[in-house]
Amino acid sequence: MNSSLQIGICGLGTVGYGSYTVLVENAKEIARRAGCDLVVSHIGTRRIKAHQEVGEVRVSQDVFAVADDPDIDIVLELIGGEELAKELVLKAISNGKHVVTANKALIAVHGNEIFAAAKKNNVVVAYEAAVAGGIPIIKAIREGLAANQLQWLAGIINGTGNFILTEMQEKGSEFSAVLKQAQELGYAEADPSFDVEGIDAAHKLTILASIAFGIPLQFDKAYTEGIGDITIEDIHYSEELGYRIKHLGIARQSEQGIELRVHPTLVSKDKLIASVNGVMNAVMVQGNAVGSTMYYGPGAGALPTASAVIADVIDVARVFNCPESSVPALGFQTDSLSDKPVLPITEIESGYYLRISAQDKAGVLADITEILGDFGINIEAVIQKEPHHHDTDQVLSVIILTHEIKEAVMNEAIVKIEELDAVGGKVSRIRMDKL
Amino acid sequence: MNSSLQIGICGLGTVGYGSYTVLVENAKEIARRAGCDLVVSHIGTRRIKAHQEVGEVRVSQDVFAVADDPDIDIVLELIGGEELAKELVLKAISNGKHVVTANKALIAVHGNEIFAAAKKNNVVVAYEAAVAGGIPIIKAIREGLAANQLQWLAGIINGTGNFILTEMQEKGSEFSAVLKQAQELGYAEADPSFDVEGIDAAHKLTILASIAFGIPLQFDKAYTEGIGDITIEDIHYSEELGYRIKHLGIARQSEQGIELRVHPTLVSKDKLIASVNGVMNAVMVQGNAVGSTMYYGPGAGALPTASAVIADVIDVARVFNCPESSVPALGFQTDSLSDKPVLPITEIESGYYLRISAQDKAGVLADITEILGDFGINIEAVIQKEPHHHDTDQVLSVIILTHEIKEAVMNEAIVKIEELDAVGGKVSRIRMDKL
Repeated sequence: MNSSLQIGICGLGTVGYGSYTVLVENAKEIARRAGCDLVVSHIGTRRIKAHQEVGEVRVSQDVFAVADDPDIDIVLELIGGEELAKELVLKAISNGKHVVTANKALIAVHGNEIFAAAKKNNVVVAYEAAVAGGIPIIKAIREGLAANQLQWLAGIINGTGNFILTEMQEKGSEFSAVLKQAQELGYAEADPSFDVEGIDAAHKLTILASIAFGIPLQFDKAYTEGIGDITIEDIHYSEELGYRIKHLGIARQSEQGIELRVHPTLVSKDKLIASVNGVMNAVMVQGNAVGSTMYYGPGAGALPTASAVIADVIDVARVFNCPESSVPALGFQTDSLSDKPVLPITEIESGYYLRISAQDKAGVLADITEILGDFGINIEAVIQKEPHHHDTDQVLSVIILTHEIKEAVMNEAIVKIEELDAVGGKVSRIRMDKL
Repeated sequence: MNSSLQIGICGLGTVGYGSYTVLVENAKEIARRAGCDLVVSHIGTRRIKAHQEVGEVRVSQDVFAVADDPDIDIVLELIGGEELAKELVLKAISNGKHVVTANKALIAVHGNEIFAAAKKNNVVVAYEAAVAGGIPIIKAIREGLAANQLQWLAGIINGTGNFILTEMQEKGSEFSAVLKQAQELGYAEADPSFDVEGIDAAHKLTILASIAFGIPLQFDKAYTEGIGDITIEDIHYSEELGYRIKHLGIARQSEQGIELRVHPTLVSKDKLIASVNGVMNAVMVQGNAVGSTMYYGPGAGALPTASAVIADVIDVARVFNCPESSVPALGFQTDSLSDKPVLPITEIESGYYLRISAQDKAGVLADITEILGDFGINIEAVIQKEPHHHDTDQVLSVIILTHEIKEAVMNEAIVKIEELDAVGGKVSRIRMDKL
């Protein structure tokens, strides 16, 4: 096992600098998992921006200097675009370097040629970050569901479009108004056609369909239809009928052939994917053994995308640098396990739901809240349910939600509450979690 | 590359026979992905049941005969239980065989010892099926999110408990009544304590926490609290306050230590996991780069669990049998790609939402539905929105949901509808998908 692998980053934009940041900030955790250090030793970028800090790393203005650097083991292609990116990736491959890319257009359009070159040169070209940002959907389909004949998949794979549809649904604003807002928030480009016309989603769908069904990449065969014609009326009528409108990429396999299409789609509100809102992405995958599964998370952004880029780097490191270990049993190298203690339940902090049965006497709620106050427990909400008229014992229910407090403290407070004369029996206590 | 790997199945219960079935039914697809045939050549089971069909495969009544069979490359431990399973797995490991298991108790309680033995003998012990059935959550955490410092995870990882809580929520029935129903449906055991007390979830949570945080397996440190004390009142009050009660396994890492706990938990209705209902499982994982992700699917059942078992087998086959290929670029071997055509959009079948603007004249709805009928298009729902009084042009909106029909047919029908005198402008058409 080498003690380190040398990483070259081409392109120091949002994703490039995000990937650098993750490699540096999570270096210790990554080494514990990969079994070796992943060191950024060469960056190709026209210029380092004012907010960017790359320490002593060698910087070249020409990205090809990175692909040609004999010390580099893995090249990250994060320059975007198609033609130059393709040239760069093919150069790195021909130099015997593994490549990790986040470039959906590159893979969807030139992937067949690139993968053939990689196979010939016995290197890996990995592209988890090209689809659905931080969600490990490529891995789920290529590996996690590999035992299945996959029947179909359907995804919200463009965050901009989903943000617009969600806002239209929730605020009742028309498409053009929401698009303007999305542009102001930086969720949509000045020219939004790539996102709202479904081209970006079609790039991703093309990739998903190929790994799901084992077909060559065929972006030019994908059908795309945008969301620009969806009106508030359509959203409201759909809602009335039990549906939400989502901009889905759908790939389906049948006897006759493969369906590959991006368009607005009515989905039953009962489906979990109908509740995926805002800029989040989600992909449903249906297999003949597993049935229906879904993968949800942020589909874009510097760090989520970097999460996928660096996961690919770790995969390459595990397989090619440390073949004897591959993925360690617990995901971390055996000699890197932590002895951090498991805390007793009394040490955790949580919000609490309390249900207290009390006699309907003046001052009982004040007594309870005074006890909570004495223990420094803040109250988030209270419901007091009056007794029914036919209840002869005049018992009321007090429901209290508290802010976070250490469980040991809450236990003491509950003992005090149960000691109140007006309180009958045990306090029911259920923990809350913000998740 | 070997042309085949020999699989031995120990235990032909639900999961064992499910795994056999998947290997046989999906053999072609699996070989396209793994690059070699995965052949079941030895089954260890006390008896083949009446409905089970295993062809010419060698059957031994003693599962250890499988672990000792020199022709077997990979042993599937699907007998369940702890002690005998542990002995069997250690035997297979000492014989140099890779092991795949679905046994959560075995891994949670004896995993440290088993993984040490596997490392010493340079074999893999894989256990994707041990947690959350068909959801590839082990892979997502060990590999897909490997670039992250994981902060916490929270999962609905016992389908029985989630079914009970969902029924209580939806039907308003008390715990004991729903439990009885779950037992009748086969979702709960005669002795349900393993599921409803949280022990099964704690086994799974123990495993998830170890791979998330890199700590040894410590099942004995997990805190468990069941759902037996949750009342309908609690569910209704929680709902009133904007929460749902879910039986969550939560693992969280802080400076002080690791939280490892299974208990009923109030979760905001806004969180996607609050909408995970019935026997389905879901795991949220939060990382410092990726943010929040979620993985959803069936947590139990013969074929979903087999999906995970066989995915592990394919992983072993890819790494140890075909190291030069590892995971192929498109998930399928290059020479196994299919030339199945991508269909034109006119060939797909879909349900449709139609919004038609029409003058408010007698018979216009009849004319529209007659056209749909002529084309064999069945109607699922109709809304007719009368014009507002201040609309001088008396235009009404007709919204129609149709059953599935080929798009080419729908296009022809829409042309006819647009030709009607009373219909103004283009028909708005949005596809529907049942997913």
